[in-house]
Amino acid sequence: MTQATLNSTRTTAAKGLACKECGAEYELKATHICELCFGPLEVQYDYDYLRTKVTRESIKAGPHSIWRYKDLLPVPDEHIVDVGTGMTPLLKANRLARRLGLKNLYIKNDAVNMPTLSFKDRVVSVALSKAKEFGFSTISCASTGNLANSTAAIAAHAGLDCCVFIPADLEAGKVLGTVIYGPTVMAVQGNYDQVNRLCCEVANTYGWGFVNINLRPYYSEGSKTLGYEVAEQLGWQLPDHIVAPLASGSLFTKIHKGFQEFVKVGLVEDKPVRFSGAQAEGCSPIAQAYAEGRDFVTPVKPNTIAKSIAIGNPADGIYALELARKTNGNIESVTDEEIIEGMKLLAETEGIFTETAGGTTIAVLKKLVEAGKINPDETTVVYITGNGLKTQESVQGYVGEPFTIEAKLDSFERALERSQTLDRLDWQQVLV
Amino acid sequence: MTQATLNSTRTTAAKGLACKECGAEYELKATHICELCFGPLEVQYDYDYLRTKVTRESIKAGPHSIWRYKDLLPVPDEHIVDVGTGMTPLLKANRLARRLGLKNLYIKNDAVNMPTLSFKDRVVSVALSKAKEFGFSTISCASTGNLANSTAAIAAHAGLDCCVFIPADLEAGKVLGTVIYGPTVMAVQGNYDQVNRLCCEVANTYGWGFVNINLRPYYSEGSKTLGYEVAEQLGWQLPDHIVAPLASGSLFTKIHKGFQEFVKVGLVEDKPVRFSGAQAEGCSPIAQAYAEGRDFVTPVKPNTIAKSIAIGNPADGIYALELARKTNGNIESVTDEEIIEGMKLLAETEGIFTETAGGTTIAVLKKLVEAGKINPDETTVVYITGNGLKTQESVQGYVGEPFTIEAKLDSFERALERSQTLDRLDWQQVLV
Repeated sequence: MTQATLNSTRTTAAKGLACKECGAEYELKATHICELCFGPLEVQYDYDYLRTKVTRESIKAGPHSIWRYKDLLPVPDEHIVDVGTGMTPLLKANRLARRLGLKNLYIKNDAVNMPTLSFKDRVVSVALSKAKEFGFSTISCASTGNLANSTAAIAAHAGLDCCVFIPADLEAGKVLGTVIYGPTVMAVQGNYDQVNRLCCEVANTYGWGFVNINLRPYYSEGSKTLGYEVAEQLGWQLPDHIVAPLASGSLFTKIHKGFQEFVKVGLVEDKPVRFSGAQAEGCSPIAQAYAEGRDFVTPVKPNTIAKSIAIGNPADGIYALELARKTNGNIESVTDEEIIEGMKLLAETEGIFTETAGGTTIAVLKKLVEAGKINPDETTVVYITGNGLKTQESVQGYVGEPFTIEAKLDSFERALERSQTLDRLDWQQVLV
Repeated sequence: MTQATLNSTRTTAAKGLACKECGAEYELKATHICELCFGPLEVQYDYDYLRTKVTRESIKAGPHSIWRYKDLLPVPDEHIVDVGTGMTPLLKANRLARRLGLKNLYIKNDAVNMPTLSFKDRVVSVALSKAKEFGFSTISCASTGNLANSTAAIAAHAGLDCCVFIPADLEAGKVLGTVIYGPTVMAVQGNYDQVNRLCCEVANTYGWGFVNINLRPYYSEGSKTLGYEVAEQLGWQLPDHIVAPLASGSLFTKIHKGFQEFVKVGLVEDKPVRFSGAQAEGCSPIAQAYAEGRDFVTPVKPNTIAKSIAIGNPADGIYALELARKTNGNIESVTDEEIIEGMKLLAETEGIFTETAGGTTIAVLKKLVEAGKINPDETTVVYITGNGLKTQESVQGYVGEPFTIEAKLDSFERALERSQTLDRLDWQQVLV
């Protein structure tokens, strides 16, 4: 497990890192916090150069993955790890729209992202590409589950050693969906925030590439592709309103950065886009700050079934808060019961089985529509970020059961009669 | 639940159905068995017309889904249900190839097919499109699990009523991954062959569209796209050898039909392609017939963890047998232990978590290589047809466990030391 030895070789439009708070500049290396003010670092690009280089045609000629946007990502060509991540469907959700009373609703469906069925495959693809460039041989992360799945899978494909850290109480599907790839897995007795603190200590001691610590500035750039893809899939235009889940707040702000970069580079026309964020009531530090009009986020101790977004001390919380306010969006939270109803609603209307985080986002969408906070005519894009097969425990017992029958026609017919007297089919008729 | 009233309106190149045994011809309607000889019916096309209409360019200009091949599928444009199915990655599997001693190995990864993570989304997309054209309002199927997931999900999206039949002992992920979409689910006490017999009776009595009974000729055409995509993704050429799982045998023969159609229409050059099939020892009627040199398949009672391919009385078994023989391929079976090892091997080398059927295919690949039945230089494509998150029970206890630690650096360091003395990291070093 050797330490990283190389710095980036400036063969991309990425020109350096800069502190989001004080603006101090750094070269492209494996670091994430400003030495002067402890603010987070972000990758800076040469947009004048990009304007001459990137066109709609050059993008369309690229691969059907996030790497079609490689000029806007901080990785030189020779280090790209492309496992088909990205370019997930943007589905016109007509049946869900009708149920909610909307007219132009789209689902960006990262529940079927490759290879591990969550948006984390985007950020990990960028982080591990950068890790290869930097020369890291061991990769690590602090994860609520999806990130561990993605890091372990892509590290296996890339032939990198891998050690991941998760909270010990994670869903079975997320644990198995990590260990199957053969990494070392540390199940930490504590919540994500405690896992994260431990990882910061480990990162200071071991020469490992932590995708969401010392590689975080590169890692988080991967989320911009959720902005790029939506703009491209809408026919090179921005939506009116987006609704996305809030965990650390990074995804939310990077979708915005993606839209803004497309404007800067001349790929789409500028227009106002409203940003609305979704949290689970059991872990809603950003929603609480929003509701109380605060410009700071008070950490909370998470207690919700939406474990993948249960970050009590969100690193980019204040930036998410600021973004929702300045774009005339909203931040809202929902109960665990509403989250399960959201999962069922999306499955029954659109045939998409999402995890608890996706149920949170759908439930918040519904709540915002009912409160008159989404205009029925707005082109609204809802981001679904993970797959329901990973959080099966959360809905077991809350969805229908099969009718157990004998392999005989009369046994079937008796069950069919029973089923027709139950909610199920009536409910379906309501749906149609 | 109204019965189908419409016949197809011949706006595609599909010109009718023909019996695979006696050649008797039928119009394009919801039927699947020859009235004269009880042979299976298959869709026939006007290839002269297709040769003038379909080009590499016309395909590339289509959507990034199976519907880029719509001219070669039996559905008129206005009835297409496109949920993004198909165009899954064809991954160059360098690390797995190195482990096995091969040089040109590819994985066609339908474990990330959309929307329900198996190749069944292909056949169901075609069947439900056709069902809409025929005017069916209730959709049904006999399923080993993946088909139920796919039928329920795509029916939900399309707004069709849905009633699916599964064996009662199915994996939890496959049951939940069906009920979440709100269909009526009949869990039949019996194996798949008993479920299928019951469904044939129901299909005769109720005016429902059974995707794999009365809609089977259209449904099975969806599998041709696994041939088309591989040929296109290899740069418009055919591979030397394919390895695919055998359940009913339909997938196997339809990949061959796909390759042959691409040759007929002038999209690729003709060349010999070897077809090798994979079965689980606990349900290997086709492999047994192959080993014994029989030209008939004797039904068996399934007993294997590879439930999704556990069909004891395979409808297209004799055609699969014939195809393996005439192309100089092989049919092989593996034990449940080898299946689990196959799942782990694919995950650890390529970062792909497949279900038991995929483990079967990888284990058979390994067995064929070890027996000298695959030439290291052959361009070999292995078809992975489903996702491991749906069959978690099968590997629980056979893969590593996390190390449980306290949120403290010294607790982590003790665990890391333990891990380094265990197989895990050594094993990883072997892999690199």
